[in-house]
Amino acid sequence: MNNDSTSQKQALTRIKIAKGHLDKVQQMLEGDAYCPDVIHQNRAVQAALKKVDEIILHGHLHSCVLKDIHGKKSEKMVEEIVDLFRKK
Amino acid sequence: MNNDSTSQKQALTRIKIAKGHLDKVQQMLEGDAYCPDVIHQNRAVQAALKKVDEIILHGHLHSCVLKDIHGKKSEKMVEEIVDLFRKK
Amino acid sequence: MNNDSTSQKQALTRIKIAKGHLDKVQQMLEGDAYCPDVIHQNRAVQAALKKVDEIILHGHLHSCVLKDIHGKKSEKMVEEIVDLFRKK
Amino acid sequence: MNNDSTSQKQALTRIKIAKGHLDKVQQMLEGDAYCPDVIHQNRAVQAALKKVDEIILHGHLHSCVLKDIHGKKSEKMVEEIVDLFRKK
Repeated sequence: MNNDSTSQKQALTRIKIAKGHLDKVQQMLEGDAYCPDVIHQNRAVQAALKKVDEIILHGHLHSCVLKDIHGKKSEKMVEEIVDLFRKK
Repeated sequence: MNNDSTSQKQALTRIKIAKGHLDKVQQMLEGDAYCPDVIHQNRAVQAALKKVDEIILHGHLHSCVLKDIHGKKSEKMVEEIVDLFRKK
Repeated sequence: MNNDSTSQKQALTRIKIAKGHLDKVQQMLEGDAYCPDVIHQNRAVQAALKKVDEIILHGHLHSCVLKDIHGKKSEKMVEEIVDLFRKK
Repeated sequence: MNNDSTSQKQALTRIKIAKGHLDKVQQMLEGDAYCPDVIHQNRAVQAALKKVDEIILHGHLHSCVLKDIHGKKSEKMVEEIVDLFRKK
């Protein structure tokens, strides 16, 4: 996370919560829960992880991109950001 | 998962693997890994969970929808499937 | 659309509206509009087309799947629906 | 598009192609084509428009963000990029 410790802490907190929700998905599967309910719970985990991506990207743009943008790495960083956008 | 035990087992196996990969995301965050690398790893977890959704939906269409489709619940099931599609 | 004429009409109406909004995206690009504004407008078109997908799927589940579900084509239809879900 | 004329031209070319493909979706709907086929064609249009978003974002990062990044607008631009990422 390269020095943006606020983003890092926020992201870690949310990862831990997502892990708890993923345990719940596992329990629902093991307990024969109704399929659409399991999918909804699993989607909530995916949405939570997507939010983690946003927090990390935000920290990255602040702590890395804004500092190095005129350095040699700027072109590489732009490509990386567009690549993250593409694969979403 | 309502009796489609093959889908249930496949989904559970993949959930357990996804949990291992999510542990890796957490370690990367704690270890100050490069942001885009963390996002890529986190995206892989999201893709794995999306695959779990597909497996569960497949089992649901087979074991629930195909059996009850002419019963009272068919309209409700159609709405549920479109709803899953919408929120994706 | 196979006989579900209500879905067909709704989908066609929305396609025509989406085409109008896509013309607007083109005009914004030609007129040097601010990039994030163009992307937001273009996203609105994509969301409108996704809504069209939902309407078509809904009509399909009603008019095709519910009628043929116990026929030879049921397995093929289930695969098609999961496939649509996967590629989203 | 703010001076990045290469991106602008590429985006416009792709918008025009997407409009042609959207005409095809309309014809398929009017001609009672098989629903999953219509959805696949419509998805191709959405994928093409998503590619346009990428091209515009790439041009934006180069022509706007890299120039103004240390100016007053840098914080606003970071928020806009994360916002685009979020809504995807």
